[in-house]
Amino acid sequence: MRTAVILAGGSGTRLWPASRRARPKQFLALGDAPGESLIAATARRLRASCEAGGVFVVTAIDQAAQVADALPGLPKDRILAEPLAKNTAAAIGLACIHILARDPDATLGIFPADHHIADESQFSSLVERSMTLCEDSGDIVTLGIVPTRAETGFGYLELAAAEADGSHRVTRFVEKPDAATAATYVAAGNYLWNAGMFFARADRMLAAIERHLPDTFAALAAIRTALAAGHDEIAAETARAYPTLAAISIDHGVMEPVGKAGGLRTLPAEVGWNDVGAWSALAGFRHPDADENIITGDAIAEDARGNIIFAGDGHAVAVIGASDLVVVTAGGATLVVPKNRAQQVKRAVDLLAARGLTHYL
Amino acid sequence: MRTAVILAGGSGTRLWPASRRARPKQFLALGDAPGESLIAATARRLRASCEAGGVFVVTAIDQAAQVADALPGLPKDRILAEPLAKNTAAAIGLACIHILARDPDATLGIFPADHHIADESQFSSLVERSMTLCEDSGDIVTLGIVPTRAETGFGYLELAAAEADGSHRVTRFVEKPDAATAATYVAAGNYLWNAGMFFARADRMLAAIERHLPDTFAALAAIRTALAAGHDEIAAETARAYPTLAAISIDHGVMEPVGKAGGLRTLPAEVGWNDVGAWSALAGFRHPDADENIITGDAIAEDARGNIIFAGDGHAVAVIGASDLVVVTAGGATLVVPKNRAQQVKRAVDLLAARGLTHYL
Repeated sequence: MRTAVILAGGSGTRLWPASRRARPKQFLALGDAPGESLIAATARRLRASCEAGGVFVVTAIDQAAQVADALPGLPKDRILAEPLAKNTAAAIGLACIHILARDPDATLGIFPADHHIADESQFSSLVERSMTLCEDSGDIVTLGIVPTRAETGFGYLELAAAEADGSHRVTRFVEKPDAATAATYVAAGNYLWNAGMFFARADRMLAAIERHLPDTFAALAAIRTALAAGHDEIAAETARAYPTLAAISIDHGVMEPVGKAGGLRTLPAEVGWNDVGAWSALAGFRHPDADENIITGDAIAEDARGNIIFAGDGHAVAVIGASDLVVVTAGGATLVVPKNRAQQVKRAVDLLAARGLTHYL
Repeated sequence: MRTAVILAGGSGTRLWPASRRARPKQFLALGDAPGESLIAATARRLRASCEAGGVFVVTAIDQAAQVADALPGLPKDRILAEPLAKNTAAAIGLACIHILARDPDATLGIFPADHHIADESQFSSLVERSMTLCEDSGDIVTLGIVPTRAETGFGYLELAAAEADGSHRVTRFVEKPDAATAATYVAAGNYLWNAGMFFARADRMLAAIERHLPDTFAALAAIRTALAAGHDEIAAETARAYPTLAAISIDHGVMEPVGKAGGLRTLPAEVGWNDVGAWSALAGFRHPDADENIITGDAIAEDARGNIIFAGDGHAVAVIGASDLVVVTAGGATLVVPKNRAQQVKRAVDLLAARGLTHYL
């Protein structure tokens, strides 16, 4: 059955002060729909395509309760809690063994919890095509985002020529390039952004992990064995296994060697994808008001243009006579930074940490 | 005995969101001394000059507890709570009858609770001179502030020529002038700002109220009679009297006619007086950091100059890469406004009120 796996392991502070160590950005309502968190939007987008197998979420053990709050319809046994963050190879491997124990025939679509997709209908159609493609071919499939700028913040997929079905073999994973290299990629036309969305039969994915990351597979196998023995045993075995796991991304650990061996395909996606990597990213997908302000929560902007204002946690914000700022209040902290310097939020986090004010982080 | 009366009846929102309907600015710590509220600084400045008679505070009944918190050394029976705000003539009259009941020979110095004085030693010296002057002459004395700019936000005192002791008769009270008129006042040299600070023997002040505001005096006389009958009677009589009182300022109701009759003198004061009428006023008396930022509370400013940042109520603020802003967070609300438009905070308050968000005001 077609099954969605949402990876909700983020711990970023790039959207501080709304995102925190203890509340990563997938739990924030950043889209136009008031109150809908990114993870809730991610699950909603997959409802139709993955109706048969439903949704699983892999998350950190201390975020499991937040995931349950954010996805109130999700049965609790579909939240797979990791005792430690061990990057995506371990998370996806854990999802594979849990899902295979219920459904040996599962096909997985794997998605980050905290991205925004503007064109949901195009996205759904590509998810269905990707599912069909990996079921029919036995290959792993990834959605590659057609680049809209020479972005240096993402990895790229290098493609072979298109095949008859519109898919491409992925010949190479490229790390975040410098600006000149990124420009040549965009100009060349055969590079797509790696958005971390993968499709595969669950048994195929686990076999790829076994082949390319045998130590990871071995550690997970102990959990798999315990799956027959009831919930307490699984949790204990997971707690035992995780410290031994290497923290490796699925991209490096599995997709790159699978791609080299010719087993990875991509479908180019133009779906209004946005990784919401900074407050300024909201300008890429939110609908501004008549003064070009993007306002979330109880906020007012008067004689003010082009601001991104976020009033979280029952806090009010008033911006009077100021323009092109990011103004965010959440969780007992406020950030003010010009929109074109929104990437520098990390500096605020570092300075507060240096002053020992870690309770605001 | 020389006795200070602090008028703490303010209810302004000019320093919103730190000042609120329920927390006027006298309770805010806005000076360089961390944690010292304006009212605490006012009381501290008067400690030496009014050591004999001590301090009384007239305040609204719902702010009495905040006054007690702000002035922990003040005996509770020195907080005179008004059941309704009836402007300064009633407040000063109430203080007169309470203080005269204890000390028929009292001399009063009357001070707003929420102003800042930079030159405390010069101020103390003028308070002592004013006390002596009103004791010796039987006149009422006011400190008039030597203007430093053609301010249109204050009333002015028009002076006669200096007398031998350096004091001047006040010949006229002038309402807030327009800019051109203010400029002529400053150029003329015989106008001072009216800062609402008055000195008089208590019996002299009460006699002036009796003469110029006989209705106010009559209503207060009932409270005076009750003062012999114990605390419950006083509170009940005060509650009965206050609704009948007209809301009249001491300036209009008493000082203007006293001045016309030749009974009001002033000593010109150059004491770094500031009425703290807007956030931008902090630039007039606070010591900025090396980047010209004025920071109160848990706030950081990075690559940011000339900002006024106030982080109240255990909230943190980070300003990155922005300049010449007022950024205030307090009581569940945040204000961002350019420093040169800080007067427009009222617009934010009005807009929030119009949207029904009155719990932030």
